[in-house]
Amino acid sequence: KINPDRLWDSLMEMAKIGPGVAGGNNRQTLTDEDAEGRALFQKWCEEAGCTMGLDTMGNMFAQRDGTDPDALPVYVGSHLDTQPTGGKYDGVLGVLGGLELLRTMNDLGIKTKHPVVVTNWTNEEGTRYAPAMLSSGVFAGIHTQEWAYAKTDAEGLRFGDELKRIGWQGDEEVGARKMHAFFELHIEQGPILEAEGKDIGVVTHGQGLSWTQVTVTGKDAHTGSTPMPMRKNAGLGMARMLEAVDQIAWSHAPHAVGAAGHIEVYPNSRNVIPGQVIFTVDFRSPDLSVIEDMEKRLRVEGQKIADDMGLEVAFEKVGGFDPVAFDEGCVSAIRSAAERLGYSHMDVISGAGHDACWINGVAPTAMVMCPCVDGLSHNEAEEITKEWAKAGADVLLHAVLETAEI
Amino acid sequence: KINPDRLWDSLMEMAKIGPGVAGGNNRQTLTDEDAEGRALFQKWCEEAGCTMGLDTMGNMFAQRDGTDPDALPVYVGSHLDTQPTGGKYDGVLGVLGGLELLRTMNDLGIKTKHPVVVTNWTNEEGTRYAPAMLSSGVFAGIHTQEWAYAKTDAEGLRFGDELKRIGWQGDEEVGARKMHAFFELHIEQGPILEAEGKDIGVVTHGQGLSWTQVTVTGKDAHTGSTPMPMRKNAGLGMARMLEAVDQIAWSHAPHAVGAAGHIEVYPNSRNVIPGQVIFTVDFRSPDLSVIEDMEKRLRVEGQKIADDMGLEVAFEKVGGFDPVAFDEGCVSAIRSAAERLGYSHMDVISGAGHDACWINGVAPTAMVMCPCVDGLSHNEAEEITKEWAKAGADVLLHAVLETAEI
Ligand SMILES: NC(=O)NCCC(=O)O
Ligand SMILES: NC(=O)NCCC(=O)O
Repeated sequence: KINPDRLWDSLMEMAKIGPGVAGGNNRQTLTDEDAEGRALFQKWCEEAGCTMGLDTMGNMFAQRDGTDPDALPVYVGSHLDTQPTGGKYDGVLGVLGGLELLRTMNDLGIKTKHPVVVTNWTNEEGTRYAPAMLSSGVFAGIHTQEWAYAKTDAEGLRFGDELKRIGWQGDEEVGARKMHAFFELHIEQGPILEAEGKDIGVVTHGQGLSWTQVTVTGKDAHTGSTPMPMRKNAGLGMARMLEAVDQIAWSHAPHAVGAAGHIEVYPNSRNVIPGQVIFTVDFRSPDLSVIEDMEKRLRVEGQKIADDMGLEVAFEKVGGFDPVAFDEGCVSAIRSAAERLGYSHMDVISGAGHDACWINGVAPTAMVMCPCVDGLSHNEAEEITKEWAKAGADVLLHAVLETAEI
Repeated sequence: KINPDRLWDSLMEMAKIGPGVAGGNNRQTLTDEDAEGRALFQKWCEEAGCTMGLDTMGNMFAQRDGTDPDALPVYVGSHLDTQPTGGKYDGVLGVLGGLELLRTMNDLGIKTKHPVVVTNWTNEEGTRYAPAMLSSGVFAGIHTQEWAYAKTDAEGLRFGDELKRIGWQGDEEVGARKMHAFFELHIEQGPILEAEGKDIGVVTHGQGLSWTQVTVTGKDAHTGSTPMPMRKNAGLGMARMLEAVDQIAWSHAPHAVGAAGHIEVYPNSRNVIPGQVIFTVDFRSPDLSVIEDMEKRLRVEGQKIADDMGLEVAFEKVGGFDPVAFDEGCVSAIRSAAERLGYSHMDVISGAGHDACWINGVAPTAMVMCPCVDGLSHNEAEEITKEWAKAGADVLLHAVLETAEI
C-alpha cells in the first residue's frame, strides 16, 4: 500500500506553486508557475532514482526501469497545469499519485518486468490554449505539433514560443514512445461517487465533447442615441443563444450537458451596444449522436436568432473528442485491484475529458477515479480527503503492478 | 462664417492621435494619447492668442479676452477623449469647432464684450472611468473631486494618479469659474436629423440616464462533469437578465432605450461554468418616471431570475443623470442663429449624455447638433460631412456672438 501522508504532503507542497486567490491554484500551462511545478516534479522523480524524458511538446516521462529491457513500459500520469481558478487535485493527484507509486515500489524493493513511467502531459486544461488535452492529443496523433505550436493565448503569445520561453521544450520526438498500457488516476469532478458512498470509480467510458466557438456580429453603436428598432445588439444575440444552449442540453438530460464558459464582448464599453461577442459553447454527452444533434441544433437555432435580429453569426469547431470506451483489460485490472483491496467501487463514465481519452487510441488505457467533495471541480474550493487519495493511489498501484508484472 | 476647410483639417490632424483599428480613434481619457491630443489643442489655442487655464480635474479653458474686464465669459466646448473604438467627431467637433470660432473672430477682428472660452472636459466618455461626464460633473458640483480621483480603471489605476501621470493636473480649483453661458456643439449620434434632412438640431432637452451594475454570482464548476440540475450558471443568469432589459426598454419604446455594453465573465474559461458575471445596464429616457420604472423592474425581474436559478444578484447604481431641459434663452439663441443663417433646423432631444447636461445646472446652457451618417456613433465608422460641420460651427459662432455681445 502507498504512503498516504507522503502523497498528501507532496500535493500540499505542489499547491504552494501558483497559489490561487481563494485557496486553490492558478498554475496555467506554460507560465513561470508551470515551469516551477515541473522543476519540483523532476527533482522528486530524480530523488526517486528515475531518469526524466522530455519531448518536443514538453510532455515529461519519469522512468523507473524494469527487469526486462525489451518490455514496453506501463505508463501512469495526468497533468500539473491548472485552471486560472482551479483546485489542488485536478490532474495533480494523477501525477503525484504516480510518483507515490514509484516511491512505494522503491520502499518495498518491488521489481517489475516492465518499466513504469510517470507522465506529466502539457496543457491538459485548455484554458490558456484551446483545445484541452492538447499535448496528449499530439502524442496520440490527433493534432500535428505544428498546429499546436501555432495556437495563441489571449495575449497573442504562441504555444511553441511559450514552451521554449519557460525552458521545457525537449528533444524527444513526440509520440515516438510505445506503451504497454496507460493508467490515469483522477478526481471524479462530479458528484456521483460521493453520493453513492463509493471509494473508487472504475471508469469504463468517457463522455465526448464538442467546443463550438460562436462569433455574433452586430453593429457597435451608442446606447443612448440609437433607437431600439435600429439596434444590432450582438450582446442580446449572445444572450438568446445561451438560452438556446441551455434548452438544447436539457432536452437530452441526463445524457448531456451544455454551457458557455468563455465570453468576450467588443468593444465592452458601458455606453456602446456590443458590436461583437465571441463565446465558446461546451456540449458533452456519452452518446456521439447526441453531441452531433446538439451541435447541429446550436447552428440552426443560433442562425435563426441571428437572422431574426439582423445579426451575423459564424460557428467554428475549436475542440472536441468522441465518447471513449476504455480498454477492457485495463478496466478490469482496476476493478479487480479495488476488489482485492476491499475498497467499495462502481463503474462510472467520466464527465470530463482526460489525457487518457486520447492515449486510449494508441495504447490499452483505463482510469481510476476517487470522489471529490460536492462534485466540485474547476473551482478553487475543490476538495478531497486523504483517505480518498489513498484509495485511488492504492488501486492505481495494484493495477499497475499486475500489468507491469512483478 | 467659419472656415470649413481649416476646421476639417484640424479634425483630421487630431484624428491622427490615438488612431483606432478601423479608421476611427482610440484616445481614451488619461492615456498618453489623451495627453498628446491635449498638447496639440493647447498649441493651437496659443497660436490663436489664447491663454490656457487648467483645473485640478484636468479640464482645459482657452480664453480669448473680451472688452469688458468685468463680464463673465461665454463658454463653448466638449471633449477630446474617445471610446476605445470611437469616431473622429464625437466630442472633438465641439472642441475644435470652438477653436474655429476663436480663429474666425481673430480673422475678422471681431471684439466681444464677454470673453469667449473654449473648454476640453476630462473623461466625458466614461469608458475607462465610469461614470461618463465625470469632470464636468465635478465642475458642476455633482460629484466631489475626491470621489472622482478614487475611481479605478480595469487595471486598478486610479483616476487621480493617471491624471498626474500624464501631466495634465492643473492648480485651478475645479468649479471656481463662473459662466455667462455655455454652448456645446456635438454630432447628433442618432438618425433623426439625417432622416429629416435637417442641417441643425436645436437641442431643447437631454434624456436622462441610469447605469446599474449587476453582479450575478453562481458557482464556478466543471462544464463536463457537473450535472445540469446542480449548476449555478451565472452566465445563463446574465443572459436571462439581458433579455429582461431588452423587454423592459421595449415596453417604453420609443420613449426609452436599454442595453448592456460592458460584460465581464469570471473565470472566463471554456470548461468552467461561469461563477460570476458583472455587467452594466444602460437605461435612458427623456422621462424621469420611465427611468425610475425601468430601474425598479430590472431589480425586481433580475432578483426573480436569480432566485429561480439559485443565484445571488446585487445591483449598484454606478452612474446617471436626470433628464435635462436646457436654458430657453440659450436655446433660442441657437434657433435664431440657424434661422438667420438659413440653415434648415428642428428641435431635438439629445439621446446621449453631454457635459452640457451637467453645466446646465450651474450656467445657462444649450446645445447645437449636426447630423451624422446613419446615426452611427461610438463606432469607428462614425462619419459626418464637411458641410454639416460647417453648419454646426456657423450656428455656434452666431449664437456665441449674440450672447457675448459684439
Ligand atoms: N479533467 C479536466 O478537467 N480536463 C479538462 C478538459 C475538460 O474540459 O474536460
Ligand atoms: N456623447 C456621448 O457619447 N457621451 C457619452 C455619455 C453617454 O453615454 O451618453
